[in-house]
Formats: sequence, structure tokens, C-alpha cells
Amino acid sequence: MRRFLPLLAAMLAMPALAQDAAEPPTPASVVAAAPASDWRAIEPADLLVMTLAPDRDGNPRQVVIQLVPAPFSQGWVGNIRALAKAHWWDGMTVYRVVDNWVAQWGAGEDEEGKSKPLPEGLRVVSESEYTSTQLDIQLAGLEERTPEMERAVRQAVEAAQPDPREDEMTADITSTRTRQAREGWHERDSYSTWVEFFESWPVGNDSRPDADSEFWPVHCYASVGVARDLSPDTGTGAELYAVIGHAPRQLDRNIAVVGRVIEGIEHLATLPRGKGEAGVYDDPALRVPIISVRLGDELPEAERPRFRYLGSDTASFAEYVRVRAKRNDSFYNVPAGGIDVCNVQVPIQRRVAEPK
Amino acid sequence: MRRFLPLLAAMLAMPALAQDAAEPPTPASVVAAAPASDWRAIEPADLLVMTLAPDRDGNPRQVVIQLVPAPFSQGWVGNIRALAKAHWWDGMTVYRVVDNWVAQWGAGEDEEGKSKPLPEGLRVVSESEYTSTQLDIQLAGLEERTPEMERAVRQAVEAAQPDPREDEMTADITSTRTRQAREGWHERDSYSTWVEFFESWPVGNDSRPDADSEFWPVHCYASVGVARDLSPDTGTGAELYAVIGHAPRQLDRNIAVVGRVIEGIEHLATLPRGKGEAGVYDDPALRVPIISVRLGDELPEAERPRFRYLGSDTASFAEYVRVRAKRNDSFYNVPAGGIDVCNVQVPIQRRVAEPK
Repeated sequence: MRRFLPLLAAMLAMPALAQDAAEPPTPASVVAAAPASDWRAIEPADLLVMTLAPDRDGNPRQVVIQLVPAPFSQGWVGNIRALAKAHWWDGMTVYRVVDNWVAQWGAGEDEEGKSKPLPEGLRVVSESEYTSTQLDIQLAGLEERTPEMERAVRQAVEAAQPDPREDEMTADITSTRTRQAREGWHERDSYSTWVEFFESWPVGNDSRPDADSEFWPVHCYASVGVARDLSPDTGTGAELYAVIGHAPRQLDRNIAVVGRVIEGIEHLATLPRGKGEAGVYDDPALRVPIISVRLGDELPEAERPRFRYLGSDTASFAEYVRVRAKRNDSFYNVPAGGIDVCNVQVPIQRRVAEPK
Repeated sequence: MRRFLPLLAAMLAMPALAQDAAEPPTPASVVAAAPASDWRAIEPADLLVMTLAPDRDGNPRQVVIQLVPAPFSQGWVGNIRALAKAHWWDGMTVYRVVDNWVAQWGAGEDEEGKSKPLPEGLRVVSESEYTSTQLDIQLAGLEERTPEMERAVRQAVEAAQPDPREDEMTADITSTRTRQAREGWHERDSYSTWVEFFESWPVGNDSRPDADSEFWPVHCYASVGVARDLSPDTGTGAELYAVIGHAPRQLDRNIAVVGRVIEGIEHLATLPRGKGEAGVYDDPALRVPIISVRLGDELPEAERPRFRYLGSDTASFAEYVRVRAKRNDSFYNVPAGGIDVCNVQVPIQRRVAEPK
């Protein structure tokens, strides 16, 4: 019997492990266990804070939107920064809400229906900017982009390991390559050859990721996009919407995704649905006044929104996706075995203190 | 030049066709063009009409739920019919609302928090009823099911054409086979080997459809399911929820899907989100009283809900899915090329007159 004692001693020394064995990990337990080093701070400058008029009971309504990082949709994001700095949305309204679709605001008319000219200097963005290439991703943020750099990136991409995804059909966790839009999880889906995460943003991809392959941010619940007229119009960014229903992935590559609501989506999702044409409020009294929209770094230090997200290049994120795809805790009988990209729901939290 | 005249004459004689060529079909135009024979009436007996207390402005709030047809989830559907006939939900509340998840009602407590015993005779349903087999589908609705019948069905399934789906990856339209859960469209997805439509209900399937292969109704926006405690509890059907966000497909085969909201989902989706544990309203004043829940055929003739759905075994439905998956009308630049099952949004309409 004696030979079993060391094992018993080891078990007694690891109560946490013994407990883990009894109850499998849940998405919540994986997030709770993620080390501080797996979280990334979101700069206040990359957040829009939209303050709506209080609700009928006087409760405040604040919606916080994270802007999508470079290289994605930066033409529109630049316009949105300019519009926010000009305080252009102040006095505008949320004026269109369609069930299982979108809540929309902006439109250049204020509460009284007076139109407001756009600030000068907004870019007219080309449809080609709905997507970004692997080259764009590698060279994002550089002041200058030379043919030499592009050549170097092409060589690096070509020299990389053969893509293990070619042989895969279902969710799987692979090693990551920094600054490639391929972090820890990827899957085929009905809308693109691959979906995966880039800096914790869900993106689609049209082919195996060579230097010229295209990537684009996809529409999920709470995604923020740029309303537009018919093609070739691409919208300025002055008129925005947030998704309040099942992911409308058919809009991918057809409308610019510029951000996602990371707090306060319920203030948009619970608004009454519009009964006018295309869900516009036919009763102007239903329009929800926008008190202000500010970039986070324009707010006084104490009011700046401080958030962090779980990095999609971390082991915690890979484990989070794996557990979400294969729930086998006490509530679940049948683990799905897979997951769709919009069901991953990237962990984003208020920061109580600066991460180390 | 003369030889072009017949063509010109033909074009003048077909203004509708000429117009179609200019503007490709949209989902709406396909639905509008569907002949009456492609629509199926929904029997009032297969509908639940839930009347909530009016909203703060006195507007009525009615939610209409279609119950899932046999063979799916019939243990719970039977209980739900019994609960409705007993007027069991009258005086209960909607008491839990979670953003991008569910609105839930029932729970055995009325507005004052008094508990109410369940009616007698409800079945305890087994977890095995989360799925139905191809045999169940073929033999659904029969009073008696003999080994001879099962043998005949097995032979028929085996003798059927080889499944063309084996070689396919993306949305495609194939011919239909009546009474097989495979009507006009099917696709692989992350949650099941196949998803497809059975009598216009989205269902998952675990393998190529031999006689014993399993099918199950899937969770989409507005799906109605049976809340339950931990496994092996499966719920009685007294406590129900409706999905008000992105399809929570991980619940498939883990909770019984018993229906879908076909009108009035906005009365649930716009409710304030609960701030108590698991989204339960901590403030009892937020609970939404249920005035009544009735089966459609219990209502007076004039009030009976009359709806119809586009049959998933019709050419109109196949074209509707094709067009939704490959939008190329004037708004869209890039057709997605595929679609996920919960984005198909089965056309369901109020009937103005009985279909012929």
C-alpha cells in the first residue's frame, strides 16, 4: 500500500487541482485565472464615450465604443476621430432602431430636425478600404512604406511554416505568430475562407494568408459600422450603427466596421423599435438625444474610461475559446465541439488599476 | 438593323423581365413573388398567444409563439399545451432578461411572489428527447410504430440516392425529398455536421442521414426553449425563455427548443436587462406581468392568430436562401457566397385570407 502514499500526498498538496478535476473549467473560470500579463490595456484615445439623454426614470445612459485598430477601416476611423473632436454628434439623435438588426445615430440632423454641415477635411474613403492585406497588417503604423519593406515582408511570409490550417475543419488551437492576423484560433465559416482574431478583433480572411491575401473586420453583436448610401458611397463615419441582433455577416466587406460597443450596448438594444420606413422613428419624440460623444482622452483624467481585453495571442484566450467550444461543465450534456466567431465574445473588463 | 427588331419587340413585351435584369432579385422580391402554393398555413392550435401587461404608455404587448412540429421536443410541447390549457401562466411574470442572451418567464411564482403548483399529469422528459432520429421523422404522427414500418423506412432511406452533400462545402441548392429533414438547403457549420430545414425549422444533424442519424432543432434569435436545472433535469416546459441575441448554438442538444417567436419578439427584446444574479430582476417592480397565455384555438374565432410560412421544400424557399447568401443587388458589393442557418430568417406572415 505504501507506494500509493506519495500520490496521495501530492493530491493533498494540490487541492485546487483536485477541485478542477471535479468541475471542468468554464469560460468564466478561465478568464478569472488569466494572468495580468495576458491582458492588454485599451488606450482611452481608442474609445468613444457616447452619453445619451437619461432614460424616463432619470437613469444615465453611457455607451462606450472601442475603435478598431490599424490597419482596418482607418479612413473612416480617422473621420470619426475628427467628428468626435469637433463635438459634431452633440445634439444629434439615435433615430432608427430595427429589431434583430441595428440601432443607428448621426445623420446630420439634430433633435429639432435641423441639418448640420459636416466638419471640413473628412476623407472620402474608397471601397478598397473595406479590406486590408497581410502586407497592410505587417506594415501598419509605419510612417513610410517602402518597396524594400514590402519585399522583406513577402519573404518572411513565404518563409513561414506551411499553414497548418489547410488540413483542418474544426476549431483548433495553434501556435501564434505575432503581427499576423492569426492568433490562437481560426475556423472556416459560411462567410469567408477563415475567421480568426487579430489583436482580439474577429476578422475574416479570403484565402491562405500570403502577403496579398485580404482580411476584414466582421459584423457581430455590438459591432459598430458606418451607414452609407448605395455603392460607391462608403459613408463618412458621421452616421453610425450598432448591431443589436444576430450577426449580420452578409454586411462584411460591404460596410466598414469601425468599432464595437464594449459597455452599454443595452442602452441601444432596449430602445423601442422604429415603426417608420426602414425602422426610422416616425414619432420624433422617440428619438434619443445624444448629449455628447467624446474620445476617451478628451475627458478629464478621472472620467477617462479604462478597459482591458484578453489578448487573442495568449494561452488564456486559446483556452477560453477551447472551453467555450467544448463546454462540459455540469450544465452541459453535449459539448458543441466548435464555435462561430461571433459567439467567442472577447473578454473585456473595466480596469481597476493599471496593468503592470 | 432590321434583325434586331424582334429582340426589341420582345424586350418591350417583357418590361418586368427587363427590370429584373437591371435590378437582381432581393430576399423581399423573392418572397413577394412566391406563389400561394409555396406557403403553408400554421394551425392556430400550434400557436401560443402570450399577452403581457401593456407598456407604460398603455400600448398592448402580444407575443405569438409557434410550437415546433413532431417529432421534435414533443414531450415538452405536450406539457406546454397542458400548461396553456390550465391557464397556468396567467399571473406569472417575465422575471429575467440578459442582454444578448434570453428573456425568461414562468418559474412558478406569480406577481406577488406566491408559488403556484404545477398542474397534474406533466411528463418528466428524458434527455434522449433532445434529439430525434430519421426514423422518428419518417414515422412522426403515427399512432402506432411497428418493426415492419421501421424496416420499410430503413430500406427506403438506404435505397435513396447517395447523399450529394458529402462532397460539398458551401451553400448549395439541391432537390428535395419529402419527409426527410433535408429541404432545399443545407450547410456544414461549427456546431453540427449539417444544418438544414425541416418543415421550415432549422435543424442540426450529426452525420449523413441514415435511419438512426440524429436531428435536433437549433437555437436562433427568437427561439423559445425550456429552462431547466442541472442535468439530468430537462425542465417541465413551465419555465420558458426566448433568445434575444446572437444565436447561442452551444445550447443545442443541451436544452429543448420548443418553438419560436413569430410576432412580438420586440416586446421581450426591449425589456430592461436584469441587474440581479443571472439577470433576474432584483427590483420586483420590473417584472412584467403575464395577463394570459392561450393556445390559438382556444381563442374566439375572430381573435385566432392566422399565420403562414414559406415551405422549405419549395423552389421559392431555395431561391430565397440563394439570394440571401449571394446578395448582389445595388447595396451589396461583395456577395457573401454562403449563409449561416440562423441568418436565413424563415419568411412568416400574417394571413389575410385562407390560402387555397
